[in-house]
Amino acid sequence: MQTTVYPFPSAACTVYHDAPLSALKATLPGRAIVVTDQHLMDAHGDQLSDWPCIIIPPGEQYKTQATVDDIIEQLIAKGADRQTTLIGVGGGVVTDITGYVASIYMRGIRFGFVPTSILAMVDAAIGGKNGVDVGLYKNMVGTFRQPGFLWYDMALLQTLPDAEWINGFAEVIKHACIKDADLFAWLEQHHWADCKADAALCAELVRRNSDIKAAVVVNDEREQGERKLLNFGHTIGHAVENLYQLPHGHAISIGMVAACKLSEEISGFASVEKERMVQLLQRYGLPTHLAFDKAQVMDILLKDKKKVNQTIHFILLQAIGQSQVVPIGTAQLADLLEQVL
Amino acid sequence: MQTTVYPFPSAACTVYHDAPLSALKATLPGRAIVVTDQHLMDAHGDQLSDWPCIIIPPGEQYKTQATVDDIIEQLIAKGADRQTTLIGVGGGVVTDITGYVASIYMRGIRFGFVPTSILAMVDAAIGGKNGVDVGLYKNMVGTFRQPGFLWYDMALLQTLPDAEWINGFAEVIKHACIKDADLFAWLEQHHWADCKADAALCAELVRRNSDIKAAVVVNDEREQGERKLLNFGHTIGHAVENLYQLPHGHAISIGMVAACKLSEEISGFASVEKERMVQLLQRYGLPTHLAFDKAQVMDILLKDKKKVNQTIHFILLQAIGQSQVVPIGTAQLADLLEQVL
Repeated sequence: MQTTVYPFPSAACTVYHDAPLSALKATLPGRAIVVTDQHLMDAHGDQLSDWPCIIIPPGEQYKTQATVDDIIEQLIAKGADRQTTLIGVGGGVVTDITGYVASIYMRGIRFGFVPTSILAMVDAAIGGKNGVDVGLYKNMVGTFRQPGFLWYDMALLQTLPDAEWINGFAEVIKHACIKDADLFAWLEQHHWADCKADAALCAELVRRNSDIKAAVVVNDEREQGERKLLNFGHTIGHAVENLYQLPHGHAISIGMVAACKLSEEISGFASVEKERMVQLLQRYGLPTHLAFDKAQVMDILLKDKKKVNQTIHFILLQAIGQSQVVPIGTAQLADLLEQVL
Repeated sequence: MQTTVYPFPSAACTVYHDAPLSALKATLPGRAIVVTDQHLMDAHGDQLSDWPCIIIPPGEQYKTQATVDDIIEQLIAKGADRQTTLIGVGGGVVTDITGYVASIYMRGIRFGFVPTSILAMVDAAIGGKNGVDVGLYKNMVGTFRQPGFLWYDMALLQTLPDAEWINGFAEVIKHACIKDADLFAWLEQHHWADCKADAALCAELVRRNSDIKAAVVVNDEREQGERKLLNFGHTIGHAVENLYQLPHGHAISIGMVAACKLSEEISGFASVEKERMVQLLQRYGLPTHLAFDKAQVMDILLKDKKKVNQTIHFILLQAIGQSQVVPIGTAQLADLLEQVL
C-alpha cells in the first residue's frame, strides 16, 4: 500500500493507493462513522462492519439540506464528537454531502473519502469543494474544506454499473480537453471497457486524472484563477443537469459540446477539433446534444456561482488540451444560446 | 470615525468605532444585503433603506436550519452572488445566523456585522464562531469564519430593552471573571443603568470587553487552548438555556454560579469570592440559581461540543480574574451535579 500527499494550501491530504478497504481501520486515530448510500451498502456492506453506518438514499435528488439534516440528527444520536472521523464511502453525491456535514458539524470534524465510482475517484473526492443543491441550483450551499485522506480501493469498482463508468469518463475527457492533449489521444485509442477489464490500466488512468485535478487545486485552492478551468462544460452542464434530471456525466458531455461551439465562435477553436471532441464523447457512450429550453437555462445561468456582476466566466478551448477563462456578458450569452446552440 | 483592526489569524477584521449607521454604505465595495430581525426593523428600519433586507423572526427559537433555509431562498431570489456582502444587523442570534449563511452560501461570501445589543457588541459579533442550534443542542452546526468588519454605532442601543442590557452584562461579568479582576471591581462600583445613561462610559466599557475577547481569539482562533476560557459558565449555561428557554444571559449567569461551585470543589476558588460573584450577578439583575433537572442536563452535557471522549473541559476559576481549563470525567461530573449544585 503506497501513499502520497496532495499538499493543498489549507491542509494536506494523504492519498492511499491500491488500498484494500479492510486496511482502513488501522490507519484511523480514533472513532469513525461511515456515511454511504443504500446501493453501496448492498454491494459492500460486509466490508463496512467495522463502523457505525449512516445510510442515505442514492441519487443526486437527495443531495439536499434535508439529507444533511438527517445525517446530523444521526450523528447526534450516535454521540459523534469533535474526535470522531467521518468517512464518506461512495460516489460524488456521498463525498460532497459527507464533506459538507463534516465541515459544519460542531463547526468542523475530521473526514476522509473512499471514492467508489470513477467520477468520484478522478474528480468529486478531490479538492475540498463540498455542498448540496438548492432546488435547481447545483452546489449552491457548501464550503471549501479538504478531506484528511483519500482511500483508493480499485476493487470497489467491480460492482460499478456500466452507466457509471460512462459518467465518470466525462470528467476524464474534461481533464484531457483542458490540460492534456496526450491523454485525449490516448482516450481516442481506448475505451472505458478496457479500463473495466484491466484493473492496472484503470488504476493508472485514475491516478493520472486525480493528479491533474490535484495539481490545479494545489495552485489555486479557492478558485481565483486556474481552478476555474475545471468548470469546463459545467456551466451549461449544471443548468441542464437538474432541469432535466440528467446523470452528471451526460449533462457535462452536453455542456462540453456547447462550450466547444462557443469556443469556435469566440476563442478560435477549430471546427475539426470540435468534431474530434464530439466523436470521442460518442465513443464513450455520452450524449452530445440536447434540445433544451434556452430561456429556462438562461434563467439558471443568471444564478450561477460563476456569474460576476453581468458576466459569466466561461471556460473555452483554444485547442485540445488548451483552455482559458473568458468572461461573456449575459446579453451576448443569451444571443449565443439562441444562435449557436 | 476611528477604525482599528483585529488581526485574527484566518482573516483581519476592521472595527469601526463611534460609527453612525448612515456612514456604512460608503465603506462597502459593492452590492450588499442586510439580514436583521423584526424588532430591529421596527426600531431602525428607516436607517436600513439603503439595502434590500431579509427579515427573520426575533428570538433564539428561530436560530435554526429552517431560518437558514429561508434566508438562502431569499438570497437566491434577490440574485445575491459571490460579490455580494451580507450585513448582519442585530443581536447575537442575527449575527450568528448571518455569519453562518455567509460561510456556506456559494461556499462563502463577504460579511460584516452591525451589533445592536450589548451582548452582540461585547461577545457574539466577535471571533468568527457562527451557527445554529439543533433541537436542544446549542450551536451544534456552524463554522469558524471572521466577519470582514464590525460596525459599532452606540446610538442603536437607545432602543435596547432593559432586559437586553441585563443579558449583555452577563458576558461582561464573564470577561471580568476569567481575565480582568480590575473590571470586576469596576463592575461592583457601577451598574448597567450607568452605561445606559452615559454613552461615552458605555462605549468605553464595550471597547474594553470587545478587546478582551478579540485578544483571546487572536491567540487561539480555533479554540485549541486559551479560547476555551470564554466558555466559562457556558457548559451548564447552554444546557439549561434551551431546556428551559432562558434568555442567554440568565442561562450563563446560572452556569457561572454552577462553575464557581465546581471551582470551590476542584480548583481552590475561595467561598468568599463565590459570594462576591453571586452578589455581583444579583446587582446586575441576573438569576443565580435554578432547580434544573440534573439527569436531563447531564444528557445534554454528554452531547456537548466540549466533550472529549469521556471528559468535559470545564472552565474553572482559581480567583476572580484567573481561570483555567479542567477536564472533568463524566462520572465525576454526574456526582458533582448531584452533590454540589
